[in-house]
Amino acid sequence: MSSESLMDHPAFARTPPWVKAKLRPFAIEKIKQVYEWVETECIPAERIFKAQIKDNRWKNPPIIHELRQKAKAQGLFNLFLPNHFKESPGLTNLEYSCCAEIMGKVYWAPQTMNCHAPETGNIELLAKYCSPEQKKKWLEPLMNGEMSSAYSMTEPDVASSDATNIACSMKITDTEVIINGRKLYANCQYNEDLNIYILMGCSDPENPNPWNRHTTIVVPARTPGLKQVRNLTIMGFDCAPEGHGEYIYDNVRVPKENIILGPGRAFEIAQGRLGPGRIHHCMRLIGQAERAYELALVRCIEPRKKPRGKLIGQFDSNIERIADMRMTIDSMRLVVLNAADTMDYAGNKAGKYAIAQSKILVPNALLKVIDEAMQMYGGQGLTQHTPLPEIWTYARFVRVADGPDAAHRHQVGRDQMKTAQGVRTRFEEYTRKYQELCKKWELEPEEFWGIV
Amino acid sequence: MSSESLMDHPAFARTPPWVKAKLRPFAIEKIKQVYEWVETECIPAERIFKAQIKDNRWKNPPIIHELRQKAKAQGLFNLFLPNHFKESPGLTNLEYSCCAEIMGKVYWAPQTMNCHAPETGNIELLAKYCSPEQKKKWLEPLMNGEMSSAYSMTEPDVASSDATNIACSMKITDTEVIINGRKLYANCQYNEDLNIYILMGCSDPENPNPWNRHTTIVVPARTPGLKQVRNLTIMGFDCAPEGHGEYIYDNVRVPKENIILGPGRAFEIAQGRLGPGRIHHCMRLIGQAERAYELALVRCIEPRKKPRGKLIGQFDSNIERIADMRMTIDSMRLVVLNAADTMDYAGNKAGKYAIAQSKILVPNALLKVIDEAMQMYGGQGLTQHTPLPEIWTYARFVRVADGPDAAHRHQVGRDQMKTAQGVRTRFEEYTRKYQELCKKWELEPEEFWGIV
Amino acid sequence: MSSESLMDHPAFARTPPWVKAKLRPFAIEKIKQVYEWVETECIPAERIFKAQIKDNRWKNPPIIHELRQKAKAQGLFNLFLPNHFKESPGLTNLEYSCCAEIMGKVYWAPQTMNCHAPETGNIELLAKYCSPEQKKKWLEPLMNGEMSSAYSMTEPDVASSDATNIACSMKITDTEVIINGRKLYANCQYNEDLNIYILMGCSDPENPNPWNRHTTIVVPARTPGLKQVRNLTIMGFDCAPEGHGEYIYDNVRVPKENIILGPGRAFEIAQGRLGPGRIHHCMRLIGQAERAYELALVRCIEPRKKPRGKLIGQFDSNIERIADMRMTIDSMRLVVLNAADTMDYAGNKAGKYAIAQSKILVPNALLKVIDEAMQMYGGQGLTQHTPLPEIWTYARFVRVADGPDAAHRHQVGRDQMKTAQGVRTRFEEYTRKYQELCKKWELEPEEFWGIV
Amino acid sequence: MSSESLMDHPAFARTPPWVKAKLRPFAIEKIKQVYEWVETECIPAERIFKAQIKDNRWKNPPIIHELRQKAKAQGLFNLFLPNHFKESPGLTNLEYSCCAEIMGKVYWAPQTMNCHAPETGNIELLAKYCSPEQKKKWLEPLMNGEMSSAYSMTEPDVASSDATNIACSMKITDTEVIINGRKLYANCQYNEDLNIYILMGCSDPENPNPWNRHTTIVVPARTPGLKQVRNLTIMGFDCAPEGHGEYIYDNVRVPKENIILGPGRAFEIAQGRLGPGRIHHCMRLIGQAERAYELALVRCIEPRKKPRGKLIGQFDSNIERIADMRMTIDSMRLVVLNAADTMDYAGNKAGKYAIAQSKILVPNALLKVIDEAMQMYGGQGLTQHTPLPEIWTYARFVRVADGPDAAHRHQVGRDQMKTAQGVRTRFEEYTRKYQELCKKWELEPEEFWGIV
Repeated sequence: MSSESLMDHPAFARTPPWVKAKLRPFAIEKIKQVYEWVETECIPAERIFKAQIKDNRWKNPPIIHELRQKAKAQGLFNLFLPNHFKESPGLTNLEYSCCAEIMGKVYWAPQTMNCHAPETGNIELLAKYCSPEQKKKWLEPLMNGEMSSAYSMTEPDVASSDATNIACSMKITDTEVIINGRKLYANCQYNEDLNIYILMGCSDPENPNPWNRHTTIVVPARTPGLKQVRNLTIMGFDCAPEGHGEYIYDNVRVPKENIILGPGRAFEIAQGRLGPGRIHHCMRLIGQAERAYELALVRCIEPRKKPRGKLIGQFDSNIERIADMRMTIDSMRLVVLNAADTMDYAGNKAGKYAIAQSKILVPNALLKVIDEAMQMYGGQGLTQHTPLPEIWTYARFVRVADGPDAAHRHQVGRDQMKTAQGVRTRFEEYTRKYQELCKKWELEPEEFWGIV
Repeated sequence: MSSESLMDHPAFARTPPWVKAKLRPFAIEKIKQVYEWVETECIPAERIFKAQIKDNRWKNPPIIHELRQKAKAQGLFNLFLPNHFKESPGLTNLEYSCCAEIMGKVYWAPQTMNCHAPETGNIELLAKYCSPEQKKKWLEPLMNGEMSSAYSMTEPDVASSDATNIACSMKITDTEVIINGRKLYANCQYNEDLNIYILMGCSDPENPNPWNRHTTIVVPARTPGLKQVRNLTIMGFDCAPEGHGEYIYDNVRVPKENIILGPGRAFEIAQGRLGPGRIHHCMRLIGQAERAYELALVRCIEPRKKPRGKLIGQFDSNIERIADMRMTIDSMRLVVLNAADTMDYAGNKAGKYAIAQSKILVPNALLKVIDEAMQMYGGQGLTQHTPLPEIWTYARFVRVADGPDAAHRHQVGRDQMKTAQGVRTRFEEYTRKYQELCKKWELEPEEFWGIV
Repeated sequence: MSSESLMDHPAFARTPPWVKAKLRPFAIEKIKQVYEWVETECIPAERIFKAQIKDNRWKNPPIIHELRQKAKAQGLFNLFLPNHFKESPGLTNLEYSCCAEIMGKVYWAPQTMNCHAPETGNIELLAKYCSPEQKKKWLEPLMNGEMSSAYSMTEPDVASSDATNIACSMKITDTEVIINGRKLYANCQYNEDLNIYILMGCSDPENPNPWNRHTTIVVPARTPGLKQVRNLTIMGFDCAPEGHGEYIYDNVRVPKENIILGPGRAFEIAQGRLGPGRIHHCMRLIGQAERAYELALVRCIEPRKKPRGKLIGQFDSNIERIADMRMTIDSMRLVVLNAADTMDYAGNKAGKYAIAQSKILVPNALLKVIDEAMQMYGGQGLTQHTPLPEIWTYARFVRVADGPDAAHRHQVGRDQMKTAQGVRTRFEEYTRKYQELCKKWELEPEEFWGIV
Repeated sequence: MSSESLMDHPAFARTPPWVKAKLRPFAIEKIKQVYEWVETECIPAERIFKAQIKDNRWKNPPIIHELRQKAKAQGLFNLFLPNHFKESPGLTNLEYSCCAEIMGKVYWAPQTMNCHAPETGNIELLAKYCSPEQKKKWLEPLMNGEMSSAYSMTEPDVASSDATNIACSMKITDTEVIINGRKLYANCQYNEDLNIYILMGCSDPENPNPWNRHTTIVVPARTPGLKQVRNLTIMGFDCAPEGHGEYIYDNVRVPKENIILGPGRAFEIAQGRLGPGRIHHCMRLIGQAERAYELALVRCIEPRKKPRGKLIGQFDSNIERIADMRMTIDSMRLVVLNAADTMDYAGNKAGKYAIAQSKILVPNALLKVIDEAMQMYGGQGLTQHTPLPEIWTYARFVRVADGPDAAHRHQVGRDQMKTAQGVRTRFEEYTRKYQELCKKWELEPEEFWGIV
């Protein structure tokens, strides 16, 4: 049976041929399984989730607990962890991208499969840098879905998108680390299911090398002195029950053995964290945009909505809009999949550019798609009648998550500027050859002022 | 004393010279008064308002009641009502635009001055079309700030942006009107300060003229059978304490004398409502964008935020962004002010195009400005730390308020298409003259295929 | 007879009411005259002009000579020169804007009225800074249409958008100035009708004040040592018969009395040149865009073009496009007219921001309009069948004329940044008042981290 | 030796890993060869080409003849013909895309390798549909570079983007076809190297099936009655020496055996022509954009250009611009390569959507990149000092070649609309399941009005 016919399934409806060709039978099965899971267990349950947290915002609702049990039992846990980790269920980044897009269709679906942020980045980090004892303590329960973690880096008092500025103080004694400072973002302490914060702070502010000043440590969520000041809303959404918090660390004491990799090695870890975890948001966003697109399509044939006697989808302006939406999503999928494949092929470091490209292009492009979908719903489009406002907000959030896109764009631009001299040298060589050719063809060389 | 020196006041910092030249001393004083009011009474009180409605979402908070009393005492009520109404406090549309921009800086500041939507459109409608008895009953208390009104037109079951589709049934008997149907939007019945709905429905569905089928009527907010199903959120915001609702009219009975203007005359009224009320949102939005701009400027010099050692405002990319924001707001202000002035000069009907131009261009352009401001705040930009998310949401809402912008764009485009034949005739005349000139200059006329 | 009925003429079809209200009867007559001139003498003659320069690129064609005579006889010369000059025909900048838009409809129509670039900027400069002898020698013949001038500033070897970099050497002796250097742009020496270059160069490179190093001088076009290396094409167009050149100044000797205002005073002059001349391009561009728009409209009803059985203008996507084009042009007209009015009201210096706003926004916005018009013509749209490619090219050129738009944007942004501290102070005052209000209302003040 | 090290060559600097993995050693060698060819023979010779056609616009210049001989000798001819043709040199569409991008760097480089439009589409068409005799007569000499062909379809008198409108009359007698009509575009008859036109006309206008009315025929370029009226310029460029023409067919008589495939079968052929040929422009455009990008990079470090004392590339706004340009080009390359791969994998028909996606997205996105590059050159950017104006014009041309992009967008949109009902059915299934889940979780189902 050809791999093509194996893929005669809606899960692969928009999978590019080159990706199909790379999917192994094992992965094909997983992707189908994820598809069935999301279609039958998650999408229809969206409003159940909402109803269950309506009056109890900071508690994971029963449906999440149930679905996590069930997904784990079906072997759908931790699919994100790339196959070079021994703890991995075995998918490549590319294969996982296909899963992640599908998961993305429902905001909380990844959580049912233990593939949600920041869990994925955290698990990857712990799998990469922890000692065996630490793994036993945190990695195993996280992968088993018995614990839940947050990641805390952003600070209100400095420009932490440039992480060398991070100032939260960590005083390391013989036995413990004493932490003082303020942090923004990181999931809510309010949620009792949260167990640990993975925290980045400054333990050696006088170190002449600014890349050796910081330390990463695991802070149990209910350590005395750690206080959540308020929940941060995102465009007005409280993002319950996980949420985002503002925190004060007031003489928080943590055992020294909670340090990951060693004091002063936070940047080494941060580098490692910049791999797949950084584009999981983008992968999921493709799925969110597909949902927005489907909602737009359905509106186009809604029989009750006939301005000037025609279905919305019979207006050729909307036909053009639908085409633009379709093509934008598909081109952004190519960008994400190429980034995943680049990591598989050449490692996270070589994939740095492709990751940044995803991180910058994808949310910006998809925001327009989602916004257009909202607009096609007219007055209803901004209300809770569809999930579009939440989808838009998620995409908007990705533009600032892990640093605003200008910071990433700068990094890409600075790297590119380094190649300019090489190009200039090549241009000078063209000019030299041009002068030779002029002799051959008996022409007077022209000079164009100010141009190589 | 020259009118210029009268205007040496921050309220006029961005007022174009041609507008300054048209402001009368009386208006100059009012604008200054509004400026002081918003600067000293409203902006500093934004978080007081939030705190007071935190646990009591559907009740106007004490600060609103207090400020409304105070503003009324200072003669700041109803400034929006144009000077051709006898009930008007005397400002032109242009003069009021200058007030409205300032009011717009705080979402609820217009309410303190009885200049908020939908009150402004409703008061204008009632002033224009009511009988003296009706005015006494509704217009006077509304203008005195003793009553509060909603406007209800949009329906979930039809494309009501094309208002001939409106289907909510009104059966007119000898003494009363019996209403059945479903409506979207219109302020919340939950809020006990709300007194009346101005409702558009279909009273004569078989009338051969589709413009004579509809009737406008005043429905007391607590009439039996009128039920709010839920509050509609806008991009997740509940917009409390005024809100937007979904309604069922289930055999709602209203006295026949509540009909405005007469049965079947709703389109006449709707036409009249399409005047200034339609761009009050745009006027206010200019003020909202100015606030976003100021927030961006302040971020640019925030001493705690120095990525790569420089203030954000020292990056020339941000210098360019600030310039773009500044220029966009200023050009959109010109569009709004020109629309207001056109109505003053030639009436609402002649201003139809300029109003549509505002309605379409302004929110789209300002959304980009506000979005940029959010982005300059990085991770904080989407949170409740600044009013930016609410400002963005308001601008986004204006794109669907009174119909999605595509509907307005279509109207403008269709009107323009009517001018095409006249242009073609002119082009043909050019060709005729060209042929004459060819003779004079002894040239062979060229023909360009398919072009007039 | 009311001024309104005076303006019941197609010349005022899109004039905003506030502008109409400011036009004096004298100006109204001039504008109508310009309208008739362009409609009857210029538009029909476009292809005559092309035919006459077809084989004789660098000579003003007979039709130009004839029309200039005729326009002068009709009192249509030099309308651009603002009414505060004694040589002015008497229009304000605002009134002239209305003329310039109409002139702009045909690329060379302004030349028939002696209102073309760079003549307008040059005449203004000479009128402002020349001695009576100099005026007699250059200003009078230029205004009489008996001479023709170029302006030369840009250099290939430095970033001359920052004019302090200008390096073309001027050695000033007792009697003459010896010039050596290379220049880009400035009209073609090839055209024998060209008489003088107004040249900016560096006469005192060691002066500690970089704003006192440069001198402006008049160089007769055929002075020995001044050589045009080649004609510069603009997007492939040779822009004949005026063109743009590359120049070598090789020991060019000019009498010292040709210096304008005095040695080292070029920046004073440059400042003065930054007035109306800087936005004449924008004014004319509005007219060019109107022509593109009319061409689009005519295509919409072209009976031979019926894809899928409908006129192009019956597709609602094109209806929306037409609306967008219409609204964009009209909003850009407001920006230009406001800049002109600001100069009238408060002088060129006060108008600096409004001029920059025009210079940046107008060509960028109109390029999209013109591009859309080309696209509506499909395969024909890029060919010589319509003037659209030249219109587009003119608009594109304006983005780099007088410096690329990024340079202007930077200037606007830097000026704005200076206002940030004032805004911050105001914000701090809001916070202070908020804290007072908290006391009054018995609330705990909230702190939002990192925000004033 | 791994395929990776085989590709340690600048030709693969931006090749995505998934493409690298698919390139066969044979193709890798060809791509390198093309790279060397373009770098050493074409780029340095750009101005030689220009000089040689300067005074002899309608004759292929000597350098083209020489390079074509040489390229053929090196086995660089006809690389575009996909490997499923027996005449093919053996590359897949994907492999050829890598070549085409490189060729695209110089406008005429593809011609040196017999890979230029419309030759590639024509050769493919002839290879697919000709009889052996016809192949001998036209296909062989075209592939040998001994003949040259044009393609003629567009008409001035109808909307030929909807090809059923094509009206050029073909009267088929027993022995010959008599042609009357007017055509736009198709390469210049002026160029004596042009041998044949492949013409689409209407031979059976009364046929009830509009898809069976048209016939494709080969017309020798110098058949009596076939007259070129003028050369069509593209944005002012004459595109010499190949050019584009306007034609009159006045009783042109062609032997009946020149009909391809048979009378009335033009649409069958047109379908076949819609394969790879349709995106060769896009492939080449990637190379053009890379050149624009390199020119921008070089400007960034141009030592003579230092506005306000800094290299242009030291302004962070330009750093961001460079990053945007880089990322845009790279994402558009992914779109093109995916389309090529889709055709390899599933055939031209299955690739229809991916081809349209390329055709619409690529030129639009790259126009912005090229425009930005021009702008970074300031006043020089629009002149002949760089190839940027021609690169921009080529990209602009691709937006109308083979029909304006709106036509393609419509097609994509209409195809997508057909999927809406399936999505709606799926949505209804979600609702059904939701209602079940409500029972399970004891919740009241919510209804959201107007939404499935």
